[in-house]
Amino acid sequence: MTEQLPGLVAVDAGGTSTRTVVLDPAGHCLGYPIAGSGNPIAVGPETAAASVAESVAGALGKAKVPSRQIRSVVLAMAGAGSPSVAAEVRARLADFGLDGPLVFESDLLATYFSGTPQPDGYAVISGTGAGAIRVEDGRQVAVADGLGWLLGDEGSGFWIGHRVVRAVLADLDGRGPATALTPLLLTRLGVAAPSGAGDRDPIIALVRTLYDGPPVRLADHARLVFEVDGDATADRILDDAAAALERTLTAVRSPTVSGPLVLGGGILESGSQLVERLVAARGGAEVQVVADGVLGVCVLALRRAGTDVGAATFQLVSTSLAAVR
Amino acid sequence: MTEQLPGLVAVDAGGTSTRTVVLDPAGHCLGYPIAGSGNPIAVGPETAAASVAESVAGALGKAKVPSRQIRSVVLAMAGAGSPSVAAEVRARLADFGLDGPLVFESDLLATYFSGTPQPDGYAVISGTGAGAIRVEDGRQVAVADGLGWLLGDEGSGFWIGHRVVRAVLADLDGRGPATALTPLLLTRLGVAAPSGAGDRDPIIALVRTLYDGPPVRLADHARLVFEVDGDATADRILDDAAAALERTLTAVRSPTVSGPLVLGGGILESGSQLVERLVAARGGAEVQVVADGVLGVCVLALRRAGTDVGAATFQLVSTSLAAVR
Repeated sequence: MTEQLPGLVAVDAGGTSTRTVVLDPAGHCLGYPIAGSGNPIAVGPETAAASVAESVAGALGKAKVPSRQIRSVVLAMAGAGSPSVAAEVRARLADFGLDGPLVFESDLLATYFSGTPQPDGYAVISGTGAGAIRVEDGRQVAVADGLGWLLGDEGSGFWIGHRVVRAVLADLDGRGPATALTPLLLTRLGVAAPSGAGDRDPIIALVRTLYDGPPVRLADHARLVFEVDGDATADRILDDAAAALERTLTAVRSPTVSGPLVLGGGILESGSQLVERLVAARGGAEVQVVADGVLGVCVLALRRAGTDVGAATFQLVSTSLAAVR
Repeated sequence: MTEQLPGLVAVDAGGTSTRTVVLDPAGHCLGYPIAGSGNPIAVGPETAAASVAESVAGALGKAKVPSRQIRSVVLAMAGAGSPSVAAEVRARLADFGLDGPLVFESDLLATYFSGTPQPDGYAVISGTGAGAIRVEDGRQVAVADGLGWLLGDEGSGFWIGHRVVRAVLADLDGRGPATALTPLLLTRLGVAAPSGAGDRDPIIALVRTLYDGPPVRLADHARLVFEVDGDATADRILDDAAAALERTLTAVRSPTVSGPLVLGGGILESGSQLVERLVAARGGAEVQVVADGVLGVCVLALRRAGTDVGAATFQLVSTSLAAVR
């Protein structure tokens, strides 16, 4: 980064980790440290703000950019813009001289711009939670779902994990069909298989273990559906999840926006059967699968700074980001 | 009650209230006061035990039977027999001289014997939770479901209420079909209807309100499915609930037991559409619908005392219970 150019800071505060990139207005990236969870809903505003501050300080140090040279900080975060979180983050950043503009962006929009520089299109995210957005002129203009584990998040990691666990218990209980998910879950949780018909000990052990943690932890078991082959129960869960995500996408569709579709979140990783199902349902339109929102929050920071992010700049950011990762 | 006959105490400790009956070994009932919740899972062991003690003391007073004349106490309670609850109840009853045998029975078995004196048959319960049992020779020999709101209780009040709320949110969110349940739930929770397409305020208000309470409170909204007519969403929820309860019943079936089927719990009340669906699925076999487990715990107390409870005694208990209710 040249001395004359003011720097931009782009932060992707995710549930698993917080990543910060320092970049110049042309899109050259410097520094990319990883800190802990920056999801205020998961870890609380104070811990999330501390993760953001740690990640930003690390990025500035690594990029060797003094804080007075930073023009603005753009931060993508779940439930962004809640006043208590914003105040907490602002105070932490001011502690090391970053008192310029602080802009919060939706984590869904950052996911979208991690897959494409095009100003109009769609994103579907399925991690622990799930939701979809429509983007027009670079702004998030419509959203569907994202209503949390109890009331929505259809097709999410929680939603899938919840079905996996219930299907296993129904199998053990004689209420549902036998499924290959059962031995996988029992092994994973260290519970012995039933010794014979009518042995309810595995049911009692599973129930005790699973009620012991917070409900949202059921998302931990979602991946079991990808680990079995030709199992009717797992296939139905995947079909239902794909159908649910399709419904969520349909809810934000507009006839005037065709645009690309960006898929993100831990459940929609490249090569997953769920991605294959969603891509097949799209019938050949452009689909991008992204691992996180880091590239997108860089794009958002550049757009805020007045940089026109076309294909060339998007490529430059993507390449220079890959070099510092 | 004659002076010579030792008395029996039968307690039905339910989630909503605790009811105690004092009866003699012939089946004549005396006293029937109602105290608060006796469900240790819902209110904790101490409060549940206090409700039991209050109800028992009231019944003895009303029946004018001194505690030294009580031969045994039989108590039907959800999760019965947990050592901490048993110790707590024992201590409370000893406080007023009831230190004889204390027998815990399953609340499911008490529901069964509230509908029939026959020693072999089935019960399906759907209240806040749901489960089924098979009864042979007067004992509960098989159980299915009853695994709680997060992991089981398929076809229960929670299960139905959860679907009602999710269907309403999907309707408002454009992810699901319009349903007559939506205006009912909005009115019930005092949330204004959307002012137009894209107005997410009702969604935000519902999400805030519903996450504010414990998840199990979603059961409060189950009854809305009975309040709409010809609504496809409500009909599908009822069909799915009936199918789930049928699966649970099927899981405890034995080819050697035909027996009667007893239906109980707040969701399976006389005349409810869900009962009609279950009765239709049974194809004409004997079905009894009961309001609570009081009569059944009296039957269990008599059986424990060596009384042979045939049709005549069952009728006597039922009639004398109706007189003191």
